[in-house]
Amino acid sequence: MKWYFVATLLTVLTSSQGILTTLSQSNGKYKYDYATVPFLAEVFKLIVSSVFLWREFKKSPPPKMTTDWKSVRLFPIPSVIYLIHNNVQFATLMYVDTSTYQIMGNLKIVTTAILFRLFLSKKLSNLQWMAIVLLAVGTTTSQVKGCGEASCDSLFSAPIQGYMLGILSACLSALAGVYTEFLMKKNNDSLYWQNVQLYTFGAIFNMARLLLDDFRGGFEKGPWWQRLFDGYTVTTWMVVLNLGSTGLLVSWLMKYADNIVKVYSTSMAMLLTMVLSVFLFNFKPTVQLFLGIIVCMMSLHMYFAPPHMLVDLPSAVRSDPESLVNVPVDRKTDS
Amino acid sequence: MKWYFVATLLTVLTSSQGILTTLSQSNGKYKYDYATVPFLAEVFKLIVSSVFLWREFKKSPPPKMTTDWKSVRLFPIPSVIYLIHNNVQFATLMYVDTSTYQIMGNLKIVTTAILFRLFLSKKLSNLQWMAIVLLAVGTTTSQVKGCGEASCDSLFSAPIQGYMLGILSACLSALAGVYTEFLMKKNNDSLYWQNVQLYTFGAIFNMARLLLDDFRGGFEKGPWWQRLFDGYTVTTWMVVLNLGSTGLLVSWLMKYADNIVKVYSTSMAMLLTMVLSVFLFNFKPTVQLFLGIIVCMMSLHMYFAPPHMLVDLPSAVRSDPESLVNVPVDRKTDS
Repeated sequence: MKWYFVATLLTVLTSSQGILTTLSQSNGKYKYDYATVPFLAEVFKLIVSSVFLWREFKKSPPPKMTTDWKSVRLFPIPSVIYLIHNNVQFATLMYVDTSTYQIMGNLKIVTTAILFRLFLSKKLSNLQWMAIVLLAVGTTTSQVKGCGEASCDSLFSAPIQGYMLGILSACLSALAGVYTEFLMKKNNDSLYWQNVQLYTFGAIFNMARLLLDDFRGGFEKGPWWQRLFDGYTVTTWMVVLNLGSTGLLVSWLMKYADNIVKVYSTSMAMLLTMVLSVFLFNFKPTVQLFLGIIVCMMSLHMYFAPPHMLVDLPSAVRSDPESLVNVPVDRKTDS
Repeated sequence: MKWYFVATLLTVLTSSQGILTTLSQSNGKYKYDYATVPFLAEVFKLIVSSVFLWREFKKSPPPKMTTDWKSVRLFPIPSVIYLIHNNVQFATLMYVDTSTYQIMGNLKIVTTAILFRLFLSKKLSNLQWMAIVLLAVGTTTSQVKGCGEASCDSLFSAPIQGYMLGILSACLSALAGVYTEFLMKKNNDSLYWQNVQLYTFGAIFNMARLLLDDFRGGFEKGPWWQRLFDGYTVTTWMVVLNLGSTGLLVSWLMKYADNIVKVYSTSMAMLLTMVLSVFLFNFKPTVQLFLGIIVCMMSLHMYFAPPHMLVDLPSAVRSDPESLVNVPVDRKTDS
């Protein structure tokens, strides 16, 4: 399977996630407990990965699995980072409004590239760094408030703590991604075995969160397992399956492609969602959405196109395709 | 003299032009006839070029001058194109408002590159084409109406004639630039002799325009030469000298650099004017101005940086700087 096929699928599913979530609401409100969705998605991913792992067992050679505690104990770390991230996110939203938070969220494109460079020692060319900055600028442009919309000026008027927490949030989000990539690539264990470890801890952490919410609420609505499927419709189940599927695709990309591919997929998904919203929910398209899309498309081409397609290389190089083999960023594409 | 020095000076002077013009108004109105400014600027350019040409005559060898009518008759053509352009501009503004017109004006960045490619047969790399598109997107982004500003929605709601005329206007503006570059480069005549021809016709056409305005107004305010300096202040004279100087710099760039350099200079000037307006006229800075500046800076670097600074070339090429000589777009830099 080629990485760009998986990346495209991730874009489509991530985009559907926003649409499905909106469709699963009635009159703009959730009739079900949204906190149960990520938990069930973790369970779904765990089941799917277990089935695939079991199928690998029936073939020979058996899947490569490191069951050493020294290795297994690393797999809850992404869940821990996400837990901290969620709390920082909550704190940030006490200082800034949601649209400022959304704009600041684009920072994680840049922080991911920086941590990717620092912790995974991947080299990016100057053009690729420029592409990363342009991707962040493009997504931000598309989100700039249109003329005549409410809550102007909020972007520059939040307290300094809000911006600091926003930056911290972007760093934590990037760290979780980069750490997961490190985990998936540190040995050639079976992807499904790595997934089983990742999602077991993911399910546990999500369960703990549901339980904590119950404690905080004094069990007024009863324990979470009694109302797990309350208000669930077919659309809600599609939200769960869709979220689970995007998780599995991200996991695949972390092992066989990298964080930058994931960042491009999800950024393109954000733009696709906005375009689809114009048709599905009668959102008014803005000039800045159009401009943002152009910038992101240019960025995509700048990052992934091989150099000889972008610049005129000296003829000596162009006539010798062998010498170009090392030019594109090394990307494992074997599935 | 290096082309980037001239280009930077052009950026500063073009930016000053907007600031000075605003400063020359009192209570938002011109106390002088603005139509006299371009005429006097043409006269200023003609005088300066004549002086320089005369100085060249005193040296040996004498300046190279083609005085053949077959050559001289080509020099009024830019003035004719500008005359048509002005009328198309006037017609466009009957269909679209000024802010839509300003946004559409960025199209001339792209049309200039297209005509530059077609008529002057200059090759641009894919990356340079992308840089051109990004420059147009960046300048447009910076001009997008801020949240809460008046006259929303106007951009998509003009009649189709408005957009057609806007495109025609962008093509004419590009054609004038590309034709001037052709004139300046078609032989190695002295720059000052070429300028003298260009500005003589420029002065005549501007004079004709003033006379035509008088006829249209039924000479109510008297003939133009009697009220030429009416209401002129020191600032008005600075506007004239500044406009003349930018014209001389553009002329130099057309001969020793090219239209794309000019397009970058004037686009950067537009952004510089907006930034200066924040400080000088208390304009409220917008997020889109900030984003537009980043996109334009990236575009500048993409267009002009030598390829080996942008992408990782195969080591065989990198270690042999001689083989890179032909890579940058050929640009004459001898003054």
